[in-house]
Amino acid sequence: MRVYLAGPDVFLPDPLARAAALKAICARHGLVGVSPLDDLAGGDPADWAALPEAYRIARRNEAHIAGCAALVANLTPFRGPSADAGTVFELGFMRALGRPVFGWSNAAAPFAARTRAAFATTQAADGTWRDAEGLLVEDFAPLHDNLMIDGAIAASGGVLMARDLPRGAAWTSLDAFEACIQAAARTLKG
Amino acid sequence: MRVYLAGPDVFLPDPLARAAALKAICARHGLVGVSPLDDLAGGDPADWAALPEAYRIARRNEAHIAGCAALVANLTPFRGPSADAGTVFELGFMRALGRPVFGWSNAAAPFAARTRAAFATTQAADGTWRDAEGLLVEDFAPLHDNLMIDGAIAASGGVLMARDLPRGAAWTSLDAFEACIQAAARTLKG
Repeated sequence: MRVYLAGPDVFLPDPLARAAALKAICARHGLVGVSPLDDLAGGDPADWAALPEAYRIARRNEAHIAGCAALVANLTPFRGPSADAGTVFELGFMRALGRPVFGWSNAAAPFAARTRAAFATTQAADGTWRDAEGLLVEDFAPLHDNLMIDGAIAASGGVLMARDLPRGAAWTSLDAFEACIQAAARTLKG
Repeated sequence: MRVYLAGPDVFLPDPLARAAALKAICARHGLVGVSPLDDLAGGDPADWAALPEAYRIARRNEAHIAGCAALVANLTPFRGPSADAGTVFELGFMRALGRPVFGWSNAAAPFAARTRAAFATTQAADGTWRDAEGLLVEDFAPLHDNLMIDGAIAASGGVLMARDLPRGAAWTSLDAFEACIQAAARTLKG
């Protein structure tokens, strides 16, 4: 069973080594991990040749997702309280295809707490929290990220595995990933 | 034609007034704007009653999107260089349904420039930029956000309208929104 490995792992210093490490864990649980860095089987369609490189990458990732039975997303907070935008896009894409989506994260604090910690938020008389621009801080503890993300994972039959790790281990530890892959393997083969 | 209005507009101080303003602009261009705050026609399905509120909202938004002909996303940078995570999820969801997705933003600077400005980035000998955790800054100028977002809009036949406004007007000006709705109306009726 092919599983798409969404995540900002592609931005790490050695993205090919990281992809190989993720795929090795998938293989250990009987799954085939598909990386955004993989070529498409048969190569890119000829009519993509005129597209800018960034758009070709986007099309290729969409095609990879469409060719997988499930998606496993690295939701570790990325340059802010939420997950990486590309990863979140891909999660929404797979959710609309009706297949299970899973998430893992190397931060366990809820979204609301992370947002309050990162921004100059103040509490209004009604108990709601607002940032310096007056925008509401979504507060559905213990959700891990925006409710569309947690909601999609739950609705699809997936799971979200979040571990409390020191920030220095955010991009190295694969314990939550392996737990997530184990759960995905059980769901897909169940 | 029904158009889903994705965006962090729901977090503004008066979200119902904001939704009404967006819908009025849609109506002016012959479109029906659907807000995440709208009830579902016929109400929520009975089997959602046991779900936590956050998950019911997520399901409702997915149902709204599935009932629309296109999606128009407010991609104004939200608490960081990227758009709001829920908005990005919804864009990916609609893209997978194969319908046109549009974006508007009250910030015109490219994603790479915004990211470099917001984070302690350094340039490596090979010319790439990296943040303090060593992760690459995606650098496909003039893209407005992560390549999955810009790529999906282009591939779907949509457009992305970004305006250069002072940050104080980021959550008030609707000029870019109206230009985007005008383009969506042309595409949907064309």
